[in-house]
Amino acid sequence: MSPEEFRRVGKQVVDWIADYYAGIEQHPVRSRAEPGEIRAGLPAHPPERGESFDDVLADLDEVLLPGVTHWQHPNFFAYFPANASGPAVLGDLLSGGLGVQGMMWATSPACTELETVVVDWLAELLGLPEHFRTDSTGGGVIQDSASSATLVACLAALQRSGQDVARRGITRRHALYVSAHTHSSVERAARIAGVGADNVRVVDSDPDTLGMDPRHLEELIAADLADGAVPTMVCATVGTTSTTAIDPVRAIGEVAARHGVWLHVDAAYAGVAAVCPELRWINDGVAEFADSYCTNPHKWLLTNFDCSLLWLANRAPMVDALSILPEYLRNEATESGEVIDYRDWQIPLGRRFRSLKLWSVLRCYGAEGLREHIRGTIALAREFAGWVREDPGFELLEPHPFALVCFRPRYSELPAAEADERTRRLLDELNDSGELYLTHTKLDGRVLLRLAIGSPQTERHHVRAAWDRIRRAA
Amino acid sequence: MSPEEFRRVGKQVVDWIADYYAGIEQHPVRSRAEPGEIRAGLPAHPPERGESFDDVLADLDEVLLPGVTHWQHPNFFAYFPANASGPAVLGDLLSGGLGVQGMMWATSPACTELETVVVDWLAELLGLPEHFRTDSTGGGVIQDSASSATLVACLAALQRSGQDVARRGITRRHALYVSAHTHSSVERAARIAGVGADNVRVVDSDPDTLGMDPRHLEELIAADLADGAVPTMVCATVGTTSTTAIDPVRAIGEVAARHGVWLHVDAAYAGVAAVCPELRWINDGVAEFADSYCTNPHKWLLTNFDCSLLWLANRAPMVDALSILPEYLRNEATESGEVIDYRDWQIPLGRRFRSLKLWSVLRCYGAEGLREHIRGTIALAREFAGWVREDPGFELLEPHPFALVCFRPRYSELPAAEADERTRRLLDELNDSGELYLTHTKLDGRVLLRLAIGSPQTERHHVRAAWDRIRRAA
Ligand SMILES: Cc1ncc(COP(=O)(O)O)c(C=O)c1O
Ligand SMILES: Cc1ncc(COP(=O)(O)O)c(C=O)c1O
Repeated sequence: MSPEEFRRVGKQVVDWIADYYAGIEQHPVRSRAEPGEIRAGLPAHPPERGESFDDVLADLDEVLLPGVTHWQHPNFFAYFPANASGPAVLGDLLSGGLGVQGMMWATSPACTELETVVVDWLAELLGLPEHFRTDSTGGGVIQDSASSATLVACLAALQRSGQDVARRGITRRHALYVSAHTHSSVERAARIAGVGADNVRVVDSDPDTLGMDPRHLEELIAADLADGAVPTMVCATVGTTSTTAIDPVRAIGEVAARHGVWLHVDAAYAGVAAVCPELRWINDGVAEFADSYCTNPHKWLLTNFDCSLLWLANRAPMVDALSILPEYLRNEATESGEVIDYRDWQIPLGRRFRSLKLWSVLRCYGAEGLREHIRGTIALAREFAGWVREDPGFELLEPHPFALVCFRPRYSELPAAEADERTRRLLDELNDSGELYLTHTKLDGRVLLRLAIGSPQTERHHVRAAWDRIRRAA
Repeated sequence: MSPEEFRRVGKQVVDWIADYYAGIEQHPVRSRAEPGEIRAGLPAHPPERGESFDDVLADLDEVLLPGVTHWQHPNFFAYFPANASGPAVLGDLLSGGLGVQGMMWATSPACTELETVVVDWLAELLGLPEHFRTDSTGGGVIQDSASSATLVACLAALQRSGQDVARRGITRRHALYVSAHTHSSVERAARIAGVGADNVRVVDSDPDTLGMDPRHLEELIAADLADGAVPTMVCATVGTTSTTAIDPVRAIGEVAARHGVWLHVDAAYAGVAAVCPELRWINDGVAEFADSYCTNPHKWLLTNFDCSLLWLANRAPMVDALSILPEYLRNEATESGEVIDYRDWQIPLGRRFRSLKLWSVLRCYGAEGLREHIRGTIALAREFAGWVREDPGFELLEPHPFALVCFRPRYSELPAAEADERTRRLLDELNDSGELYLTHTKLDGRVLLRLAIGSPQTERHHVRAAWDRIRRAA
């Protein structure tokens, strides 16, 4: 494709996307495709001759769109948001156009240095401690996902545990600590890193706050020590996936520090809320105790997936765990020790110029715009929660510090199992309608509906309509 | 950003990229930035107020571009190519615009099903075996990088080795087998998976072909078995990073099969060459013996980083290793077993709609266009190699089956160490000139220059000019 053809077709694609956003409400939020349906609409064999991009766009409209669930739809309230925004999409487009591979500083210095700048900027915007900054002992890095960030933290923790895992492999039993509300990525990291799912200990949670119980953590660590295992990492969550509960980071950190256990703080969803000073309390204890901290601009901070930030208090054990320098990558800058090679900070080797999209977002929204987005979505969630609270037919889970509201119809006349069944049917009916999309979780064995607000497209009238629709269906 | 603003600014960005390509030859190929220079040109603090995208583009031009090494420059001959193309950039732009998160079939069916279609298409285009197809026991998946693909293969191999590593962790010594020419990603996978770098055995290579010696592999496996270790995975490379040597996959596969050792074939760079029937011989033995196979469209097949394909002969051990289903991800489609959830096929949880860019490339080039690209770059490399061969001042490494040529000035009057020093200085001089960019490797302790051709921008006159420049400098 010549530059002039790119210019022409590129503008068609931009128009396609602008039209898509302008008309997004005409689509059912959740795709109605049946398994195999989209595949059946596509040719079984690749084309022999090249086709035009018009053909691609036509098939996108006709064949693919019916199979798309519209994550950017204003009535998408499922999971957590995976927010896109114009500046992010265009920053990413620039990254695609430049097509640089930033595995090392030397393979494109700007790719590394812009990343360093934006992770430091974001640390400042969130009020994270000085030692998370790249010019200190720690530093930040953009990962593809919080799951990968958890894995990198786990590898650093294993390395720091003194068994030289990178060289010798796992030779002892290592234990990781979570609560029942911790994201499954910790168990997954345990599987990947050779720790094993059986060595992930589930610490009790406080039945009211749903936060991890630091005393029980202490007991489990003591039991593991007595048993000859190596207590290696505890994961505290700020904003759990189910209900956005907050673990007591400070109290957990005190226990972890006493035993030399790595404290990873998973604030994948909620961490970005700290752009608002009035929400900085969620990170209490992070400055003093966190060895690593993760939050995802790709959830609630207007930056397209993938963009997950991981900071470390001390980057050395991570680099020890992950650095290998084959001959073909040797270069003066790396050997001088003056530069960062982010390949040593992540699972893959190669990397895209991902900081461009985050930079575009931080520049185009500015701190003010980001705060407005967070505050606006929280305000909508509060308003929704207010409607739920006032309706005698519904139960509301409190508190709801962020933009997720968990609730359910009371169905007080029904036994629990039947009520749950009804709640599930309600959920299916709502999602099948195409008008909105919610997901569920379970708490104490009972089904709860989750409504997560986060799209910049979502306005008050969308939330109001969702509530009316839910009430009508229940 | 409203759809109308996106329309306007998006077109500016498209123009920026078209202009960038049109003028790319005006930039020095390799950035001349010093460590810290780009960072120093950027504000230390994030903006309080939002700025316009024009400001972003202005800083891109003024501050960032001098720090960019131009991987898409026609005179970029370093490493392996990381080819971009118009269709790939625009396919990826569509992915950004749609902003779907395809962790499971249910979160956007088209994202999963298009991926299934394109990985099956590519298997067909490369002549890979039927059992790699998704409707068979195996299946393909798009990974971010070959390094991640290696890790996933390693986890599947560990799982198949019968120790229930996912649940119990690493409880025995597992051994992986590589040659001195295998990519460092295998050692890295060993570190990450808890196998440990010390348990990566280096099998001898044939001094002529540089291929792994299957008899020595057999000996090492026997020694490990005698020692109580679990021989777990061997990595055979089709197109090594240093010199594009080819391991004898069939002979290695016979040894591996005899001992139940997983055979991973790493064809990250060269595998895509099999779009040309006359190059299918490179995969001899893959159909019969490979448990997993990886090749990167993001290197030499016109698809922007990141797009690495991994196929498996049997997907079950991989899914066993990686699958966890927390409540919040439960859904009817997953439970029916009728769909693929690619989250169980990769390290991260979330995933972008990456198949769109590969689909765009396969559609817009067609099989014919892809073959033309591979044949054209190989022909240029042959012509370059011919010039080197005919020049008495140079030595050429043969064979060079793909589009990488390794060579060096003879400097016959100098002892080896001094000649190497001169070669290195030559390399620095060339790269400092900004006119072209090459990298180096070492073979038998001696420095070799590597010239890799792969950009669709590179024409014969660029290669000729490179050769003239090299000859002049030597
Ligand atoms: C608390 C928490 N941690 C981790 C994750 C995983 O995020 P990612 O998709 O970036 O891996 C999630 C996803 O919802 C989450 O809520
Ligand atoms: C043979 C081989 N395997 C693996 C890799 C790693 O590729 P990636 O950057 O996709 O991880 C390379 C990179 O050059 C390679 O040449």
